[in-house]
Amino acid sequence: MSVSLAESRPVLEADPSPDQILQIGMGFFASKTLLSAVELGVFTILADGPQTGEALEQALRLHPRATYDFLDGLVALGLLGRRGDGAEARYTNTPSTARFLDRGSPHYVGGILEMANARLYPFWADLTEALRTGKPQTEIKHNGKPVFEELYAEPARLEQFMDAMAGIGVLNFEAFAGKFDFSPFKSHVDIGGATGLLASKVQARHPHLSSASFDLPVVRPIAERHIKAAGLEGRVAAGEIDFFADEFPKADLITMGMILHDWNLANKKMLIAKAYRALPEGGAFVAIENIIDDARRENVFGLMMSLNMLIEFGEAFDFTGADFTAWCLEAGFSRCEILPLGGPASAAIAWK
Amino acid sequence: MSVSLAESRPVLEADPSPDQILQIGMGFFASKTLLSAVELGVFTILADGPQTGEALEQALRLHPRATYDFLDGLVALGLLGRRGDGAEARYTNTPSTARFLDRGSPHYVGGILEMANARLYPFWADLTEALRTGKPQTEIKHNGKPVFEELYAEPARLEQFMDAMAGIGVLNFEAFAGKFDFSPFKSHVDIGGATGLLASKVQARHPHLSSASFDLPVVRPIAERHIKAAGLEGRVAAGEIDFFADEFPKADLITMGMILHDWNLANKKMLIAKAYRALPEGGAFVAIENIIDDARRENVFGLMMSLNMLIEFGEAFDFTGADFTAWCLEAGFSRCEILPLGGPASAAIAWK
Repeated sequence: MSVSLAESRPVLEADPSPDQILQIGMGFFASKTLLSAVELGVFTILADGPQTGEALEQALRLHPRATYDFLDGLVALGLLGRRGDGAEARYTNTPSTARFLDRGSPHYVGGILEMANARLYPFWADLTEALRTGKPQTEIKHNGKPVFEELYAEPARLEQFMDAMAGIGVLNFEAFAGKFDFSPFKSHVDIGGATGLLASKVQARHPHLSSASFDLPVVRPIAERHIKAAGLEGRVAAGEIDFFADEFPKADLITMGMILHDWNLANKKMLIAKAYRALPEGGAFVAIENIIDDARRENVFGLMMSLNMLIEFGEAFDFTGADFTAWCLEAGFSRCEILPLGGPASAAIAWK
Repeated sequence: MSVSLAESRPVLEADPSPDQILQIGMGFFASKTLLSAVELGVFTILADGPQTGEALEQALRLHPRATYDFLDGLVALGLLGRRGDGAEARYTNTPSTARFLDRGSPHYVGGILEMANARLYPFWADLTEALRTGKPQTEIKHNGKPVFEELYAEPARLEQFMDAMAGIGVLNFEAFAGKFDFSPFKSHVDIGGATGLLASKVQARHPHLSSASFDLPVVRPIAERHIKAAGLEGRVAAGEIDFFADEFPKADLITMGMILHDWNLANKKMLIAKAYRALPEGGAFVAIENIIDDARRENVFGLMMSLNMLIEFGEAFDFTGADFTAWCLEAGFSRCEILPLGGPASAAIAWK
């Protein structure tokens, strides 16, 4: 299903159409329509069964002017189904929205879209300023507080942020747990582990490992709750670390999921050096990220995510496999490898 | 070229991927990247020839943190070319961006993207409020003035708006001039004609017609300048009308391009009735718009544009061919027809 402006306009070499340009440039229409639908809980309400437009208007408290343009727009985007046409038609989830956008689904990925709706969409309005200044365009512009400091000050918002990250990370962590060879390792520590998701996904498939997820002290009770909910109590430990102040705990395998891209080059190198020091010979450090292709030509989402790091943090940036390899060899690692995880994500692996 | 999050993740019926959802939901990243590129004039600078990243950084006054993520992001989106990799690489326009996004090109469509960047992107941040209230989310929220009133108060901004509309309209007007049978008509009047573009495109191909473009008095000098620049002085007249206060001038063929969707139902019907009264038997009224398919399932851009009318005006809305037909038959027209123009646009034709 494409957000197509045009199926029928012929594309000639001598007289190309601007449809691709307009499709991308006006793509925020479709994007924000979906973000508002997630915010309003359309897909969660439809988990109870098909609904008429009128019933949805009531349940979502929509204005009558807006109801059908909103719902039929979602149908045309392939994000809702509709049985019948006209006033008696009933709207339904698609298999995909039922699985991924119903808040009651264990596969809910809407957290990242809720965050995009509340924060990133409006902050990206200042992209041009970010491109000109190299400075973040988030809450910090208004109240001077770095985003992580603010997040970590309020456990409820912190957990919301972590759920958002987990929703988008889970498929990558599952792919890593399925594709990587864990047999050489006895112990696994995930640094910056948030809810313990990466350590839990690995432990679930590789119970021979001793597993731990480390993050700031405020995160520990959140991680313990999630680990328990996953039925992995006693199998995944929740540890405390301030990865700026503390050395990493020793382990055969050290992972970081979507952490390195949050920091500038000096901090990236500092974290890689700490991983190196904590590993034995033959140990491995793995960063799971939207690793950009070396030629910086293919991984749209990785490059867009790096611009998002500019918006969020200024100096922080996403990187290529070649960048990762150069930093790790400089830190003393003996060789590196990039393991694609499907979609824009890869595991960047450095062997000591 | 797709804004793809994932080529390689397998899609299984039993275990679908959320890539389509994430691609649409995070699509504002790509959208705003292009809008900022148009704002900064990337494509206009590259009209003079390929440039290194460093040269573009200087010319566009980019911060070094941002330069390569921005430019390589545009490469990955298919919106720039790049000869070579690394620091010596030179960025180029694509055939499509050279034609449509260089401000010096006669085919420039960036006006609509400039307007989207400056106005629509930030206003769409309030889509949820629009869905709940049915109220516009534009300048009127902040200063109480309707957008058209404000635009028409300042000729420079008015002309900028008209250029934006012309950029996106020109292909539709050319398609209409090429596909519609003008042989039964001797006179053509375009109502709400702005720069005179629709009347000019028709006159250029059908010189047997007497042609005129009518709009508010403030628009007349702008239209006369554009008509002269198109070499059609003396062949397309620029007339004055307030289509709320005045009857339409009599003509065999009356057109309105992207006008009806700007108004609520009562005003749409008022305008259709005025067209009817101004036509002879056998005359035709034509509305060129992003006519939505009758089932409201296919024309994504038409439905999104209708949500944009909600954001811009509140009550205004886009409509289906069936809607248009019902209103025109009610006004006395004898039959209607929808002529697809390529892309999301059609000509809706009503015969008296």
